[in-house]
Amino acid sequence: MKVLFIGDIVGSPGRNALKQYLPKLKSKYRPDITIVNGENAAGGKGLTEKIYHEIRECGADVITLGNHAWDKKEIFDFIDNAKDLIRPANFPRGNPGVGYVLKKIGNSTIAVINGQGRTFMQPIDCPFTVLEEIVAEVREKTPYIFIDFHAEVTSEKQAIGWYFDGKVSAVVGTHTHVQTADERILPGGTAYISDVGMTGPYDGILGVEKEAVIQKFITNLPVRFEVTNGREQCNGVFITLNKQTGQAETIKRISINEDRPFFD
Amino acid sequence: MKVLFIGDIVGSPGRNALKQYLPKLKSKYRPDITIVNGENAAGGKGLTEKIYHEIRECGADVITLGNHAWDKKEIFDFIDNAKDLIRPANFPRGNPGVGYVLKKIGNSTIAVINGQGRTFMQPIDCPFTVLEEIVAEVREKTPYIFIDFHAEVTSEKQAIGWYFDGKVSAVVGTHTHVQTADERILPGGTAYISDVGMTGPYDGILGVEKEAVIQKFITNLPVRFEVTNGREQCNGVFITLNKQTGQAETIKRISINEDRPFFD
Amino acid sequence: MKVLFIGDIVGSPGRNALKQYLPKLKSKYRPDITIVNGENAAGGKGLTEKIYHEIRECGADVITLGNHAWDKKEIFDFIDNAKDLIRPANFPRGNPGVGYVLKKIGNSTIAVINGQGRTFMQPIDCPFTVLEEIVAEVREKTPYIFIDFHAEVTSEKQAIGWYFDGKVSAVVGTHTHVQTADERILPGGTAYISDVGMTGPYDGILGVEKEAVIQKFITNLPVRFEVTNGREQCNGVFITLNKQTGQAETIKRISINEDRPFFD
Amino acid sequence: MKVLFIGDIVGSPGRNALKQYLPKLKSKYRPDITIVNGENAAGGKGLTEKIYHEIRECGADVITLGNHAWDKKEIFDFIDNAKDLIRPANFPRGNPGVGYVLKKIGNSTIAVINGQGRTFMQPIDCPFTVLEEIVAEVREKTPYIFIDFHAEVTSEKQAIGWYFDGKVSAVVGTHTHVQTADERILPGGTAYISDVGMTGPYDGILGVEKEAVIQKFITNLPVRFEVTNGREQCNGVFITLNKQTGQAETIKRISINEDRPFFD
Ligand SMILES: [Fe+2]
Ligand SMILES: [Fe+2]
Ligand SMILES: [Fe+2]
Ligand SMILES: [Fe+2]
Ligand SMILES: [Fe+2]
Ligand SMILES: [Fe+2]
Ligand SMILES: [Fe+2]
Ligand SMILES: [Fe+2]
Repeated sequence: MKVLFIGDIVGSPGRNALKQYLPKLKSKYRPDITIVNGENAAGGKGLTEKIYHEIRECGADVITLGNHAWDKKEIFDFIDNAKDLIRPANFPRGNPGVGYVLKKIGNSTIAVINGQGRTFMQPIDCPFTVLEEIVAEVREKTPYIFIDFHAEVTSEKQAIGWYFDGKVSAVVGTHTHVQTADERILPGGTAYISDVGMTGPYDGILGVEKEAVIQKFITNLPVRFEVTNGREQCNGVFITLNKQTGQAETIKRISINEDRPFFD
Repeated sequence: MKVLFIGDIVGSPGRNALKQYLPKLKSKYRPDITIVNGENAAGGKGLTEKIYHEIRECGADVITLGNHAWDKKEIFDFIDNAKDLIRPANFPRGNPGVGYVLKKIGNSTIAVINGQGRTFMQPIDCPFTVLEEIVAEVREKTPYIFIDFHAEVTSEKQAIGWYFDGKVSAVVGTHTHVQTADERILPGGTAYISDVGMTGPYDGILGVEKEAVIQKFITNLPVRFEVTNGREQCNGVFITLNKQTGQAETIKRISINEDRPFFD
Repeated sequence: MKVLFIGDIVGSPGRNALKQYLPKLKSKYRPDITIVNGENAAGGKGLTEKIYHEIRECGADVITLGNHAWDKKEIFDFIDNAKDLIRPANFPRGNPGVGYVLKKIGNSTIAVINGQGRTFMQPIDCPFTVLEEIVAEVREKTPYIFIDFHAEVTSEKQAIGWYFDGKVSAVVGTHTHVQTADERILPGGTAYISDVGMTGPYDGILGVEKEAVIQKFITNLPVRFEVTNGREQCNGVFITLNKQTGQAETIKRISINEDRPFFD
Repeated sequence: MKVLFIGDIVGSPGRNALKQYLPKLKSKYRPDITIVNGENAAGGKGLTEKIYHEIRECGADVITLGNHAWDKKEIFDFIDNAKDLIRPANFPRGNPGVGYVLKKIGNSTIAVINGQGRTFMQPIDCPFTVLEEIVAEVREKTPYIFIDFHAEVTSEKQAIGWYFDGKVSAVVGTHTHVQTADERILPGGTAYISDVGMTGPYDGILGVEKEAVIQKFITNLPVRFEVTNGREQCNGVFITLNKQTGQAETIKRISINEDRPFFD
C-alpha cells in the first residue's frame, strides 16, 4: 500500500500548486491513495463545497481538516454529504462530520483518521483517548491506518507518534505549515513526521502576506491577513506500507519549490 | 566566513553527542566559528558553569540560550564573567548577561545575537525592536551577523527571518527541538531555517522520557521529566557567508542519527 | 438547608484565619454543612494528609480542590481514603480521587461537586459534559446540589452558572483568590458568584509575597513564591436553600479583614 | 478631588444604562471628574466616533479603552483628534492615540492613565515600565493620578496596585466585566479594586447572549456573539482624594441592577 499525503493547501496558490504537481507526483510515486489536508484551501481559511470538489478532482481521495475546519460557514451544509472529507475526530459532541473514513483500495481497505492537538489550541476532547478508540475499532478491519494529527507543538505530535507506534501505519503532523526533517520509521513500524508542511505561497509567512504578519507582531494592530502571491511550493510525504502487516517500510519527504525543483 | 551552529544540547546525551560529532563536523566543514545552543545542557534545563566550560572545550566558540536560561540558579553567579555566553537580548530590564557578542575570527569579526519570541511564551520585550537596534549597532562593525532566534511558532520565526532579510547573514531558529526542512537563502541574502533541532536523545520526546510525557498529556498528573537515554542524535546547520557582503551563500542542514549516519 | 463555603485556604495564614473565624461564622450562620476549598492549604500549593485533617477538625465537612490538587505528592497516598475530599470531576481518566460526594445532613442529603474550567488552564475533560452527567445522577437522590467551579475566566464561570441554573442549588467560583461582588440568585433559582475569594494573607498578591510577584512580572526571572505573612483575611459565601425545592433563597458574601472586621 | 469611574460600557444596553444612571450618580456623588471605559461601547467591540461623542455627552470627561480599542476600524480616523480619549499606554510603537491625559478641574489637574496587562493577553510593552515613566512625569504636575488598568488576571492587577501604591491616587481594574469586592485603600494611600465590572446587560455572559457563549464552550463551533438584551446593570467606583496629598481617602463600589436598585 502506497500513500501520498499533501500538506495544508493554502488558498488559490495552494490549489494551483496542487494542480501542477499532483499529477507529476502521482506518475512518479504511483500511490494507491492520495490524502490532502484542506483546512486552508478556501482563501487561507476553511473549505467550500466548490473547492472540496476541486481538490477531489485534482486527485485527492480523502481530504482532512484542522482548526480552520469551520471557518467557511457553508461547510455545515455539505460536510455530512461529503463522504471523503473528515475533520478532527476529537472535536467535541455536537460537531458535524466524522473523524475517520475507511477507503476501499482494490481488495484492501485503509483507514484515514484526523485528530487535533490541544496545547496552545482550543480545549477539545483528549486526542489520545478518542484516537485510541477509533484505532481499536478500525484495526479489526484493516492493518492500514493513517493518522493526520493537526497540532501546534512538537511534543504533542511526538507523543501521539510514540503512543500509536506499532498500532498504526503512519502518524503525519500538520498545522505549522513548515515541513520538519524528522521523518522516520519508529521502532514499532509507524511512519512519523512532525509536520509535512503546506502547499501554497513560497514567499509569505505560513502562506500569508509577510508585511501584514510582521506589522501584527510589532504593533499588535489589527491587520488583514491575505494569502500572498508569487512563487509556490508543494509539501508532502510518500509512505509505503508492508502488504502483510500494514507497517511502514519507507517514508520520504516531498518538498518542491524554486530552490528544490521537481525531478521525475 | 563559515559558521557551524548546533541546536539545543539536551543533558548528558546531548553533551556526549556533541563530543562525538563536533570534531568530525569540524574536520568535515572547517567552520571559522562554532555556535551551540546550551539552554538544555544541564539535565535538560539550564546551564551550569562546569557544563559551560565543557561545551566550550568541546569546541564551541559561542553558547546561546533561550527560555531555560535561568533554570539552574548558579548561572547568575557566572554569566557575567562568561564572555562567550549570551542569552536572549530581549529579556527584560534587570536580567543579567548580554544578548550579543562580537567575536574576532582572524581579521574579521562576527556578531552573534540571541533573541526570543513571545507567542505562547513569556511576555518579554519586543524581539523585532530589540534585535533591530542591536543589528543597526553591529552592522557598523561587521557584515557578518548571526541570529539564534529561540521561539515556539513558525509564524514568529519566519517573521523575524523576513524582517531581517538583507540585514543579517543568518536567522536560525531554535526551541522546538525538531529540525525543519525549510532551510533556504531568502531573497535579500539571509540564510534561514525555522528550527535546527536539538542534540540529545533520539528516542524520547524532545529529549525527555516518552512515557512521562505521554502520561502527562493523557492524565495531566504531575510527572517527573527526565532526559532519556539510549540512542543519540546531533542536529545543526552549516552556513557559508560571502567574504565581501556577509550575505549567506549556502545553508546546509546537519542531522545525524542511527537512521542517517554521519559520513565524511 | 444552609451552606457555608470558604474560599481557597492559603498556607498557614489561611489555616489561622480559618481557625479564628470559622467558629464565629458557624455560631453566626448555623450552617448545616461547611465546605472549604483546600487546594492551597499546604504552603500555598496542594494539600497534605495532616492539613486535610486539620481543616476537617476546624469544622469543614467537605474539602474541595482545584488546579493545585496534586502539588503535594503525598496526596496520592491518602486521597482515596479521604472520604470528604473531592477534586475536580472533569480531571481526565487515570486521576485518583472522586469529583463529588453525597453528604448526609440529618434526614437530608447534599451533593457537593467540584469542577474545573479550561480557558487559560490545562486541557482537561469538558466541564459542562462531565458535571451534567453527575448532576443528572445526583438529582435522583437529592434536590440539594452544590458546585465549586474552579476556573480562571469570568466567561466560563458565568457559562457554568447559567448552564446549571435551575438544575443545581448553587454554583460558586474559586481560583482567582479575589472575591467578586456579583453574587445573585439566577432566574432558575441557582445561587451564583464568580469567585468567593481566598482565605489567607491580606497584604500579598493572591497570598504570595508581593515583592516576588512584582519582580517576576517585571523581569521574568525565576523567583521563589512564598506565602506572605502579616494581616489575614477570610472570604466565603453563605447560602440558604429551600427545603422543598433545593433552590437557593439567599446568597450572602462573607469578607473579613482589618478593613471589614467580623461582626456578630 | 472626587472621581467617578464607570466600567466597560457594553453596546447599546450599556449606553442606555449610562444615560439612565450617570445623571443620578452625578447628583448623588457630585464627582469632579467622570471617567468611563468605552472599549465595548460599539456593539460590544470597539468604539465609533458617534458613540465616543454620545458617551462624552452623557457626562464622561475622559474615556479609556482596552484590548478592544481597535475593533472598529473608524477609530483610526478620529482617535488622534479625540482629546479626551486614551488607550493603553503600553501599546507598542506605531499605535495611534495616547496613553494618558491631563485634565483641568477648576484650579487642579488630574492625570488619567490607561494601561493593559499581558498575562493571557497580547504581548505588548511592559506595563510596569511604561506606566512608571508616565507616573514619574505627571507627578511633577499633579498629585492626582488615576490609572485604569485593563487586565485579565488578578495577580497582574494586584501587582500593579501594589507597585504604584503611594505613587498614584487610584488603580482601578477593568476587562473581566465582573465587579470584584476587594476595594480598599492600600497602606500607601492608593485606592484599589481588581475590577469595577461592566455597564450593560444583566443577564448575559459578560454582556453577550448566554446561549452562544455556552454553545461555544461546549462545541467549540463558531458562533456569533451578540450583545444581549433585557435587564441592564451599571457598575463603577467612586473615589475621594485628599486635597493636599492626592492620596485616596475613600473608595466605594457602585453596582446597580434589579437585585440592587439605585438609591439616592
Ligand atoms: Fe493549516
Ligand atoms: Fe491549522
Ligand atoms: Fe531547548
Ligand atoms: Fe527553549
Ligand atoms: Fe487557589
Ligand atoms: Fe486554583
Ligand atoms: Fe471590556
Ligand atoms: Fe477588555
